Formats: sequence, structure tokens, C-alpha cells
Amino acid sequence: MTQNATAGEVELQCRQAHGAFEALSKMAPEGRAGLLEAIAAALDAKHDTILRTCAEETALTIDELTPEFVRMTGTLRMFAGVVREGSWVRAAIDTPSQQSLGPSHDVRRMLVPLGPVAVFGSSNFPLAYGVCGGDTASALAAGCPVVVKEHPAHPRTGRMIAEIAQEAIRAAGFLGDLLGYLHNENPKDFSVARELVQHPRTAAVGFTGSIAGGLAIENLARDRKSRDRASWNDSDPGKHDRIPVYAEMGSMNAVVVLRHAARNRLEQIADDIAASVLARHGQQCTKPGMVIIGGYEEAERFYAALCARFSAAMPRRMLAPWIADTFRSRLAEIVDTGIVEARSDHQLPVLSDADLVRPVALFLQAVSAEDEPDVWEEVFGPAVIVCAAGHLAMGWPFIPNALTATLIADPEDFLDADEDALDDAWLGESSRILYSLGQRAGRIIFNGVPTGVRVAHGMVHGGPFPATNRPDTTAVGPCAIERWCRPVCFQNCPDGLLPAELRNGNPRGIRRTLNGTRCKASVA
Amino acid sequence: MTQNATAGEVELQCRQAHGAFEALSKMAPEGRAGLLEAIAAALDAKHDTILRTCAEETALTIDELTPEFVRMTGTLRMFAGVVREGSWVRAAIDTPSQQSLGPSHDVRRMLVPLGPVAVFGSSNFPLAYGVCGGDTASALAAGCPVVVKEHPAHPRTGRMIAEIAQEAIRAAGFLGDLLGYLHNENPKDFSVARELVQHPRTAAVGFTGSIAGGLAIENLARDRKSRDRASWNDSDPGKHDRIPVYAEMGSMNAVVVLRHAARNRLEQIADDIAASVLARHGQQCTKPGMVIIGGYEEAERFYAALCARFSAAMPRRMLAPWIADTFRSRLAEIVDTGIVEARSDHQLPVLSDADLVRPVALFLQAVSAEDEPDVWEEVFGPAVIVCAAGHLAMGWPFIPNALTATLIADPEDFLDADEDALDDAWLGESSRILYSLGQRAGRIIFNGVPTGVRVAHGMVHGGPFPATNRPDTTAVGPCAIERWCRPVCFQNCPDGLLPAELRNGNPRGIRRTLNGTRCKASVA
Repeated sequence: MTQNATAGEVELQCRQAHGAFEALSKMAPEGRAGLLEAIAAALDAKHDTILRTCAEETALTIDELTPEFVRMTGTLRMFAGVVREGSWVRAAIDTPSQQSLGPSHDVRRMLVPLGPVAVFGSSNFPLAYGVCGGDTASALAAGCPVVVKEHPAHPRTGRMIAEIAQEAIRAAGFLGDLLGYLHNENPKDFSVARELVQHPRTAAVGFTGSIAGGLAIENLARDRKSRDRASWNDSDPGKHDRIPVYAEMGSMNAVVVLRHAARNRLEQIADDIAASVLARHGQQCTKPGMVIIGGYEEAERFYAALCARFSAAMPRRMLAPWIADTFRSRLAEIVDTGIVEARSDHQLPVLSDADLVRPVALFLQAVSAEDEPDVWEEVFGPAVIVCAAGHLAMGWPFIPNALTATLIADPEDFLDADEDALDDAWLGESSRILYSLGQRAGRIIFNGVPTGVRVAHGMVHGGPFPATNRPDTTAVGPCAIERWCRPVCFQNCPDGLLPAELRNGNPRGIRRTLNGTRCKASVA
Repeated sequence: MTQNATAGEVELQCRQAHGAFEALSKMAPEGRAGLLEAIAAALDAKHDTILRTCAEETALTIDELTPEFVRMTGTLRMFAGVVREGSWVRAAIDTPSQQSLGPSHDVRRMLVPLGPVAVFGSSNFPLAYGVCGGDTASALAAGCPVVVKEHPAHPRTGRMIAEIAQEAIRAAGFLGDLLGYLHNENPKDFSVARELVQHPRTAAVGFTGSIAGGLAIENLARDRKSRDRASWNDSDPGKHDRIPVYAEMGSMNAVVVLRHAARNRLEQIADDIAASVLARHGQQCTKPGMVIIGGYEEAERFYAALCARFSAAMPRRMLAPWIADTFRSRLAEIVDTGIVEARSDHQLPVLSDADLVRPVALFLQAVSAEDEPDVWEEVFGPAVIVCAAGHLAMGWPFIPNALTATLIADPEDFLDADEDALDDAWLGESSRILYSLGQRAGRIIFNGVPTGVRVAHGMVHGGPFPATNRPDTTAVGPCAIERWCRPVCFQNCPDGLLPAELRNGNPRGIRRTLNGTRCKASVA
């Protein structure tokens, strides 16, 4: 294979993925769970080699990559559990009834997989959002073969993981091509992305990266030709074949620090925020991008505290030279607006050596935010903007749409209004702020930092545009599997023709909604 | 209000809806359920007046509208039950754990409402997809105020229902404007749609109608300006404020009749299909649009049988003059392709009087389908295309994407391959055909007709484009509520600040996913 896959190579891998789809989608849960576990075990067996290669290639440290490795294999195993348990298909059965609303048909619904999924992993999480990351794990779990586009920031890691996983799949006895991998070493060559997204057999796309990248992938999907011979008029772009794109993009991740919290524990908060920004050198989708402090004086002090910590931090290489370039140009862009500045003795990052980047904290002046949209978009890398709430023309209600929003507060922060009613006032004011944060983000953190994502049912890794283009979904946790599916209803279908999940006897023993009640029962 | 709402009227109603949002979204379930029931009761109290007005205005009969009325009020009451029961929010709680994958945060997720929903009801179901139809019922249930755009095919019905519902809401003591209604008598005036979809406070859109209409609404949503002052660069359309559009559009609804079934019970099948096409004069989204018969001779006989039934049917008025015009021009369009024809003594419908329309059955010749995409798109009205499977260049695998696909078959249809293995062959062949129908539709009907939609958990009213633009959703049944929501996670949040659905004590007694297990328990 060439360093950038040719159109013919994309064609081959997409056809192979399509060829494997029916067998994978019909495979019993135990088989699919076993495949995911086999991949996880094969990756575990190469743990040290993968980490070493990845660290060399990305400038992330072994310490940073080790928990990410655990998350990668842990997510594969989590989805094995999800598939084995079985109720993820959201089976619902309504048997004929005199009380039915509408005709008394027997109707039974479950999720079915869409078909081959194109996965565009991220630069910054080469493992957890890479070839065998969450998108791949959830798609395979759903019954969708995957074709991964290589990320040019870590091709050696990507190829190594692809080969290990492909070998594990073959060793598990699965004959089809469940996991394709397309070389794309050149970050300026978009032809692989175009061919993959627009291939007629691609049924869905998972993307993790920048806003510009996500929008470009959306546009490629919108320009797809019709999949079928007998379908839509090619001259009308609205009628082209549609596929869903799930793009996780840029996120500002505001942190709101109320005044008393800022006074009571400023050093601790500065430690926490600095550590959160500096981890992985700011290259995290959940990095705090803006800290809004409930007081002018407190904001100045917090800014100084953050600058001191950043000054003491070691400069580091970023994931790839072009990522450092983009960081530099984004910083220049927002400093050029004139509404943010690097103060005190802390300088704008000088790339003393072409590779090394220093973290930077910027201070936001009083602004009318609408004049400078650039300031409100993520700066990917070790940069954070600090401001006083009063410096925002809009005050508290202004929180940029993001994956997360964080509230740091002490009880006294809610006492000012009514000192006699501690509990009520606390609840009232906090609830109000939490509610307004909840309008803007997929995850609300209370007295913590936004980095550090737990993989669990209760997690939401998603949020309003531009953090994602599909705020109704999550990229992390068991529900991520639903992105690769749609519901199908079988009406008056003989029991023997139904998928096992919908048969009277409930042979898989899964929880189903049976005539409105959620249970594991058979149909009487 | 003018006959077509002005921009100022749209502005007012959208602001009022937004003003009511926070109160509605925070209202306890009992209150929200009570509102839905109050609306249903108020509509029931005006049952006869509504039906009479609606029948006069739409040319649908009282017999046709009566079950639709029951469905409208039944759906409102169903969603009252959904809200009261409470588990629709999909609450999931993960408490801190040594076994957690990633940091051991307490993470708790639930669905939250998006904000005001713009509802565009359909021409053909003035009640069930009207002002208080399924979109409105599910949006209010979710906690989203609604602004309805009047359908010009039944303004009197729409206004009557809006007034009854608004009065019921006021009588229930709710002060805000939960249900707006915008006049739009002129079907050629799209300004109301544009202002409503592009209003900064509109958070989602529900649309039911034609493909052209749905695509136009999608485009309006895509061209929205930014909602916020501090947001995206208006010169880059990709960065405009996004809102979800759920459009149910045109659907062909293929019916596949295998050869033995066609031989064994042709008259019965012709009765069923004719009744399904003729009900509501073909103006149903689930009307069978194409019948594919497994044999040339059987197809000819079936066609003749259908023509006989259509000839005996009374000509009828359609819903509106412009709908009859569109029916006529769509028929002309597909007949002009030269690949379908009206045979035997059955003529193409002559509109003997400007208002009356006769049903028509067309016969499809052998074709290469890709040459004539027009033939594969819905003809809204009393028309159906009949063909032999062998006349389709692609045979069985060719089924147009649709809301439904129907399989009519007798056991002998699966015997040809292997007469000794009745059960296995039946299962194998039927499963294969069902599987391929399932790739194309949201609902698969076995030995029935596609019209007649049961409102139940097991229902899916949705399907691949162009039947809908969001095949991952359903417009009918309890899950329709999820369209107006997104998940939010609360991390390490004090119990008292959490929404009731996520508190330790489970005060609402709802089913939740607690550390991976679905149950009603409190957090220990």
C-alpha cells in the first residue's frame, strides 16, 4: 500500500467491509463479544511496544499514554459486555391488545446496525480515539465493520494497532474484513478522506478532530452521490444519499469560579487548572479553555498564579509540527484582536526551538464578545484565557457551547443574597447557574476540572455545536453504540422469522419493553 | 393576526415560547402530564365540532377522521403516562468505584429538553399530525414549548384546535405561552416558515410533508444565523447555529408478493391493497406505492384485479386543490418516462370536474431503473405502480428506501429450493428477504398492508432517506420524545443540586441504570 491510499485501495477496503457486514451483523452476541475481547487481549500482549512507538511518535509521555491504553482496551471489553448483556438493542414488543391505540398489530422493534463505518481518529488520543478506540469498538459491537483512515500524526502507531487487531480477528476465525485501514501519511492529502466518506458502501462516519476538519467531513458527506441505481436525481444535491456523520470537534470548556471560592482557595484552584491545561500539553478536547472568575481582583490574582505555574512548566513538543503551527497561528489570531493580552512577566510563547512550545495564559479585557468570534473558539494546545465575569459584556449567561462546563463554588458564594437561608439560597443560586451551564454543555462538572473522562453509562461526551454536530449522542460510554444503528419494527412477523432479541421466548434473556413494561419476561 | 403571520408575529410567539421554556422544563412530571391530559379532555369535549369542521375542510370523511381523532387524544394521554412514569429520561448513575475505567468521578446522566420546537404539521393527517398531533404532544412532554405553523390545507381546523388547547393550558393555570400558532393561509407564502425556522430561539423543528418541503426546511435550518453574540463567523455557513430538523417526507412503501401467495389468494390480496390505497384517497404516508409480484403472469392478473377495484371506486376530492394539481403533474411526469402505463380499460385519471380525482394503477415495464428516478419517488395520492419482479433489472434486492416494506408470502414460496426442508428453507429464504427489506425501511410488515399505524413502544415510524432525514428516530410511539432532547451529565454534583431524576433517593421512583444495572433502587 502506498503512503496515501489510492482510490482503488479505498474501493477495495470499503467493498471488503461491506462484504463482511451481513455476517457480522448476524453473528451471535457471544461471537461478537469474543472478537472484541480477542482484539483487547492481542493489544495487551503488545502493550510495551505500542506505548514505546506511540510515545516516540507523538511526544506524549509513557505516563500519559498508560491510562489511555487502559481506556482503549477497557472500552473494547466494556462493549464486549454490552453486546453479551444484549439489552442495548432497546427491544420493545407490543402484542395485540384490545386497548391498542390504532390497529392491534403485533409490533416489535429493535436497533439494527447501519453498515460499514468510516472512522477518523484524533491526533491527540492515538489509542483511545485511534484505530481501536471508542468509535471502532462501538461500531464493531453494533455489528458494523470499520474502515479507519490513518492519522498522519501517528502512522506507525496506527499501522501497528491495525495489524495486531486484524491478526486477532483472523485468529478468532472470522473470515471477513471487519477492520480496514487506509494509509494517509500526508496531512495535506484529503483524497483518502474524500474517497472514504463518499464511497457508496460507507454507511456512517465517526470523526474526532478540529472544527474545520469536522465541517469538511460533513460537507463531503453532503456531496455524496446516490448509492442506488434507482434513486435520486444527481443534479439535486438535496437528494443525494445521506449518511450520518458524528463529529466531535472544538470545545472551549469554560470554568466558572465564583468569588468566594476564588478567595478561599485560589492557590489550589490554580494548581488544579494549571495541571488540567498542562496535561498532554493542552492537547485535550476537554482542556479548560477559559476561566471566568467572579471578581476583578480575584481574576487578576488567579491570572498571576496561573502565569507563575506556566512559567515553571517545561516547554514541550506538540503532537506534530503542523499542530504546533496551528497553535501559533491561532494564538496570533486572538492576540491580534487586541482584546486579550499576555501580561506580567509571562510572554507569548516563543518557539525557541522549532519544536518546543511553552504554555500561555491570556487575560481578556472588557469586550463586546460578538465583535471577536475568534476569541470564543478553541485554541488547541497549552493556552487558556482568564477573565473576570464583569469583563464579559453578558456576565454569567455567556458560556460558549462546549463538551463541558465547570462550576467552582463555595457555599458562601450563594449567601450574599440572603444570609438567613443558607440551604435554600445555595440551592437556588447554584441550581440557576448549573441550569444555565447545562444549556451549553454535555457535561457539567462541580468543583473539579473538565479533563479526565470516566467511561461509564452516566458519562456524556458530547455537547452543542461546535463541540459536536450531534449533541443528542455521546462518544463515550455504552450509549455510543447507538450512533451506528437505527430502529426497525417487525409487524405481525412469525416468531421463527424474528431476530432472537424479539422472539416470544426471549432466548437471549435480555431486558425488553413488553407491552409498556421493562422486564426480561417471555411473551405469554 | 393576519392571514399569514408577519415577521413581528413570529418574533413575538418565538420569544413567548422561549419565555415559557424554563418553567415548563422544570415543571414536575405530574404538572406536565396534567397539562397534556387537560388538552386531550378539552379536545374530546369539542369532538363533534372538530370532526365536522375538519371533514368539510379536508374532504376526508367522518369515518376516516374518527380514528384519527382518537389517535390524537390517545397520543396526548400516552405521553402524559410517559412523563408520569418518568424513565423516558434514560437516567444513568455511576457512583465512584475502584473498578471505574478512567477517573472515579460520580457521573449521572439524563435527557434534558432542547427548547422551543417549531412544528410543521402534515396536510393529510390534520389531527394526528396537526396542531396537537404527535410532534406537539412529544415536545410538550419533553418540556419544550411549541410554535405551530398553520397548514394552509386546513386553517379552520388548525385554529380551532389551537384555541381549544391554549384555553385548556390557561385553565390548567400555566401562565406561559406553551403553544404558539402562526397563521399561514397562503400555500405559496414561505415567509412564515423561514422566519420560524430561522428564529434564534427555535431549538428544533418537526416537519411532516413532501420531500421537497422537508429539504426546503432543512436548507432554512442550515442557513440560520448564529444564535449568540459571541459565536460563529457569519460569513462561514458551516459555523452557523445548528438545530436538529426531524423531517418525515415521501415514502414509496413497496409491497413484495411472492408467487405462490399471488396464485393462492390473489383476489384477497387485491382487496387488501386496493383498500389500503383507497383509504383517505391514497393520501397517506404509508400508502403502498409499488407492488412487486413474483411472476409475470401473476403480476398481469393482479394488475387487472386492482384496476377492476379502482374502476369501481368513487372519484373523490383531494385535500386541497394544489395537492390535486401536484398529483396530476407527478402522474404525468412518470407516465412521460414511457416505462409505466395505464393498461386495459382503466384510464389515467381524468379530472372530469376540477375537484374530483379517480384512483389509478400503473403497470411498470422492464426497465433499467437508474434511468428514471422519477418513477421511484412517491406519488402522493391514489396511485400505485404494479410490476413483476422480473421486470426490475435488479430483482428482489431493489426496494426503495421507505417508511415501510411489506412481504406477502405463503409457505410454498420458500419450498422451491428444497422441498424436503420446509422449516429450514422457509426460515432461510424468508429471513433473507426480510433482512433485505429491513435494510430499506423502518417497519417491515408480514402478510399485511403498510397503512394503519399502531401507537406503541414497538412501533417505528421512520426510515432511510428520503422517507425521513433521521432514520435513527421514530415519529410515533414513546421514543418520539427523545427527538426533542439531548443528554447531559452531572459530575460530582451535590445531591441537592441534581435534578430529582438523578438524586440518590430516587424520589420519583423511576427506573435508572445504576452502576450498570437497570433498576429502581436508591443510591446506597
